[in-house]
Amino acid sequence: MSPETVSSGLAGVIAGRTAISTVGKEAKRLTYRGYSIEMLAEQASFEEVAYLLIYGQLPSSAQLREYREQLQSLRRLPEELKPVLEALPGNSHPMDVMRTGCSALGCLEPEIDLEQQGDIANRLLALLPSLLLYWYHFHHQGTRIGTPTEEESLAGHFLKLLHGETPEAIPRRVLDVSLILYAEHEFAASTFAARVTASTLSDFYSAVTAAIGTLRGSLHGGANEAAMALIDRFQTPDEAEREILAALARKEKIMGFGHRVYKEADPRNAIIKDWCRQLAERVGDSCLFPIAERIEAVMKQEKGLFPNLDFYVAPAYRFLGIPIDLYTPLFVCSRVAGWAAHIMEQRADNRLIRPTAEYIGPEPRDFVPIGQRG
Amino acid sequence: MSPETVSSGLAGVIAGRTAISTVGKEAKRLTYRGYSIEMLAEQASFEEVAYLLIYGQLPSSAQLREYREQLQSLRRLPEELKPVLEALPGNSHPMDVMRTGCSALGCLEPEIDLEQQGDIANRLLALLPSLLLYWYHFHHQGTRIGTPTEEESLAGHFLKLLHGETPEAIPRRVLDVSLILYAEHEFAASTFAARVTASTLSDFYSAVTAAIGTLRGSLHGGANEAAMALIDRFQTPDEAEREILAALARKEKIMGFGHRVYKEADPRNAIIKDWCRQLAERVGDSCLFPIAERIEAVMKQEKGLFPNLDFYVAPAYRFLGIPIDLYTPLFVCSRVAGWAAHIMEQRADNRLIRPTAEYIGPEPRDFVPIGQRG
Repeated sequence: MSPETVSSGLAGVIAGRTAISTVGKEAKRLTYRGYSIEMLAEQASFEEVAYLLIYGQLPSSAQLREYREQLQSLRRLPEELKPVLEALPGNSHPMDVMRTGCSALGCLEPEIDLEQQGDIANRLLALLPSLLLYWYHFHHQGTRIGTPTEEESLAGHFLKLLHGETPEAIPRRVLDVSLILYAEHEFAASTFAARVTASTLSDFYSAVTAAIGTLRGSLHGGANEAAMALIDRFQTPDEAEREILAALARKEKIMGFGHRVYKEADPRNAIIKDWCRQLAERVGDSCLFPIAERIEAVMKQEKGLFPNLDFYVAPAYRFLGIPIDLYTPLFVCSRVAGWAAHIMEQRADNRLIRPTAEYIGPEPRDFVPIGQRG
Repeated sequence: MSPETVSSGLAGVIAGRTAISTVGKEAKRLTYRGYSIEMLAEQASFEEVAYLLIYGQLPSSAQLREYREQLQSLRRLPEELKPVLEALPGNSHPMDVMRTGCSALGCLEPEIDLEQQGDIANRLLALLPSLLLYWYHFHHQGTRIGTPTEEESLAGHFLKLLHGETPEAIPRRVLDVSLILYAEHEFAASTFAARVTASTLSDFYSAVTAAIGTLRGSLHGGANEAAMALIDRFQTPDEAEREILAALARKEKIMGFGHRVYKEADPRNAIIKDWCRQLAERVGDSCLFPIAERIEAVMKQEKGLFPNLDFYVAPAYRFLGIPIDLYTPLFVCSRVAGWAAHIMEQRADNRLIRPTAEYIGPEPRDFVPIGQRG
């Protein structure tokens, strides 16, 4: 390949094969294992979707009941993890805590055999919310919470642990839908990082830890927190319009818009926006949602850009009473299902992912011994 | 790009530009910033090489003195890291401990501003050996060691902390040379993982943590431990020859041979092999080195494969009295210099690294509601 063919950021470069999802093949289509995201968000639960991603097919009623029970049984933190979480500062970025907690779990419950991989995927699915919220309550309320709950869904479990009370049906379902939308997205940077790590035949936890660290960036999962911070800057839709126009004139990047792969729209946006509107009506909001819609309109008009999933997730999570710095960790709690599916897929037909680089550095030069360097 | 052009494992695909090193452009050549690996291994110290990689040029005498002092001053563990290291089991894989320790450091000393990146690189260079050996001695000897030492080199510092006594000149220099050889290798899988993570604008620790987890695999850094395990299986060169031939007949993969990028030889091998021979003579070895040479001869004859750096590093580290499961962590202690240079280079001209995939999964299909699935 000649230097001219370097593709910046591997945009459009096919880096491998996958049977897990299609993204943007028809401009704005997304499917998980052949099922459209619209159908899944309307009719499925997150646990069904996680099962579909990890095992390749939808569960029967009996399989789903068993799967929910299995996940419920895996929510208790190992005792040895608690001092680790307690030693991490309360003002750490929760994504750093997730990354460290996942890595530490790899020390405590290591992967010895490839046959454990499905169990490890389920353990992480069940435990990551517990891990995050144990740390959160220890440092913010000074309490050591018990992490099992009676809630049968991850969404309900998360809201129960966070707020300490049984969530109502609509908030539980909105969070559930957002987790379905976040669960999988082909070779997103975090998923690709997980596959690179897995391709050296490293362990499951190393791959997920790499993915968490990659998701953290503001050009990826961190965008939902950045979108909320943006919306929070404004008091009214008119102010938002004025300030966004000014920011665009200063060539600032506005988070939560556009996508590397989708060219016309992000199919997940319509779904979460609709739920976000319902939540706004439910809580009597007359501020956040109209501001978000105005920003959307300005971005469309000025840049031709559409909101991606992260943009309306942000106000939806605000309406659910979720603190802003837990938005990206929630993305982790869901996407770990997709990462797990990709790690297993990579391992089933592995080849080391090791590209090459165009060299643009100094020509060969003679070494100058230290004594002659002055 | 048509499906036919999918390059398995991105082999030969140019994924970006770098000014840091050239690998295999002339079949077996390796340079760091234009200086050949042979000259660096002969005339430089690891600290000079780390400075060269991170700052782009060789230090003057005064700069090197200052740099050594800076690194020496950064070897003390933060108190809050100790309970984390103590909570990780003594039988953890040390690479899992390195990965977790690096991630936890990112909670304790987070990167707030891009201007910190050089300081964080140096902190990791100075602290990773301390972190590893604090954990190691706590769990294996039951002692809480102090981690600063008077040793001015990383190599001397590591051996002093490991063995508890001031190392002799030759062992110190052999370890130093091995660190020079390990310091950088273009878009190796771990380095590429670090760049993928950095490309989302995530923090420095996330990128290094991803790299550590990626290096862990046996197709990458873990190869040095695998090579030692291989050599240890045999009592004599003749037995090694017989067993390697049998393993090849069973189509087993022999670790420590061949390389994705080098086609004729690994230029680092001649250097470490020569030092390994000197160490063998020094300790009066008549077993390990002859066995390693016989395996090399069989692999050349049967498969046309050459040993890579990891193969002779393994017996060399054995001669230095280093436990086998610290071999890959030593690779980390060195390669963090290269990773740091690549993270900075990625950030200086960033674009999200997000490839695409060829979809080979099910065609679009209708969702079957749970009640109709039986």
